Amino acid sequence: MADQHATNRSVTARALAVLETFDMKHRRQSLAAIARRSNLPLTTVHRLVHELEKNDALARGSDGDYEIGSKMWRIGLLASVHADLREVALPYMEDVYELSNDAVQIAVVDGLRCLVVERIAGSRTMSVMSKPGSRLPLHATGVGKVLMAFGPPELQDAVLNSLDRYTDTTITDATKLRSQLLTIKAHGFAKTNEELAAGATSIAVPLWGKGGKGGKVIAALGIVAPSDDVRDISRMLPVLQVTASALSKKLAESGY
Amino acid sequence: MADQHATNRSVTARALAVLETFDMKHRRQSLAAIARRSNLPLTTVHRLVHELEKNDALARGSDGDYEIGSKMWRIGLLASVHADLREVALPYMEDVYELSNDAVQIAVVDGLRCLVVERIAGSRTMSVMSKPGSRLPLHATGVGKVLMAFGPPELQDAVLNSLDRYTDTTITDATKLRSQLLTIKAHGFAKTNEELAAGATSIAVPLWGKGGKGGKVIAALGIVAPSDDVRDISRMLPVLQVTASALSKKLAESGY
Repeated sequence: MADQHATNRSVTARALAVLETFDMKHRRQSLAAIARRSNLPLTTVHRLVHELEKNDALARGSDGDYEIGSKMWRIGLLASVHADLREVALPYMEDVYELSNDAVQIAVVDGLRCLVVERIAGSRTMSVMSKPGSRLPLHATGVGKVLMAFGPPELQDAVLNSLDRYTDTTITDATKLRSQLLTIKAHGFAKTNEELAAGATSIAVPLWGKGGKGGKVIAALGIVAPSDDVRDISRMLPVLQVTASALSKKLAESGY
Repeated sequence: MADQHATNRSVTARALAVLETFDMKHRRQSLAAIARRSNLPLTTVHRLVHELEKNDALARGSDGDYEIGSKMWRIGLLASVHADLREVALPYMEDVYELSNDAVQIAVVDGLRCLVVERIAGSRTMSVMSKPGSRLPLHATGVGKVLMAFGPPELQDAVLNSLDRYTDTTITDATKLRSQLLTIKAHGFAKTNEELAAGATSIAVPLWGKGGKGGKVIAALGIVAPSDDVRDISRMLPVLQVTASALSKKLAESGY
């Protein structure tokens, strides 16, 4: 009986590991690629992929490669990041976009990264560097720094432990970043200057759940703008703050 | 070995069955509700839910109920209905919306139903009856009738075999519907009149993949409008047709 449980557990975990080999850069994959990226034996992957395809979790294209099936999409839309957070936040984000014409995004903590829940961008905004569903580094983005600064010490410690460099200005010194996080928490907003990509600057503020300010930060709202824009991105801070305040109230009503 | 395969297969299928008990009306569920709706023993569900939660496929709320986790959302966004079809179609749908101010939607066949891939609606449109991810009956919607009319005979037979009634005007007579499907295929568009819900009328046209007209219909594009609108919904047919033609070309370029 104990053996069977062990097997079952690992099957579910392994089936999910197969699904997780797919990402925006690997939307269609061969069986061999899935095996390589999942670190599972080809025979195991073969069996799991077959099961996932039979149950519409994966779909097979005419070229023989596999992709995520529409059933997974339908199920995924039920997640609260989409159905609650995104749907509540979208009209507020549109208001910010109308005033700034820069890319507006909200993100939540997802493991040791931040997950972009929604992003609005227009033809006049910067080329798209992230999409809904993208996972960005916490220490090199405005929304990420806010989530870190207001997050639990364990999250900060884990992220500070491994600071990847993306540009010349990415902060990879843990002491320097830790001190910056204190400033962000004290001032209530974060800024980045080309720390993830050359040419991009960002500013972000926290969104609060139930209990309002001083309660739990559930997400971050931010703007990404070209760093050569003559208008300082800081001009948008009051707009972000007043929007975050209104949106936080609305999210608290929705049970956040 | 054969036994182990059998176990593995059923575990994957059962884990997916647990995820599939969630839908828009059941976004948060107790363990007992999941067991009831999945027809699986409570002990099995307990084990599977625990595994799914451990791997972030399910998340547990503060009230103890479970919901779909953000990992599923992130994976689901990679499905081609979202990442290809929706992203390619959205700008075209916005053009139609600007001209009609009625709800605009695209749908694909999903089992014996149609899956709403995207829907645009504004404050002046009808109250929302479907959302992206909704599964609607094929025989009572404009987009569904198009997908049926241009679909394989097996799909038609299966749907005609069980025609649920939604309103007084839902067509539940298989012979009558079969004849209507022939007309739809001949004329290239479908109309409904309060067949799914009182007060709603719809019109829809097919979207073609590679090979253009006469090739494979991959989706349907439609408008839903109030049936008491003094403007006849048929006025939008030329707009839908010209949009479908342009969008079909674009989709063929994207590999559809």
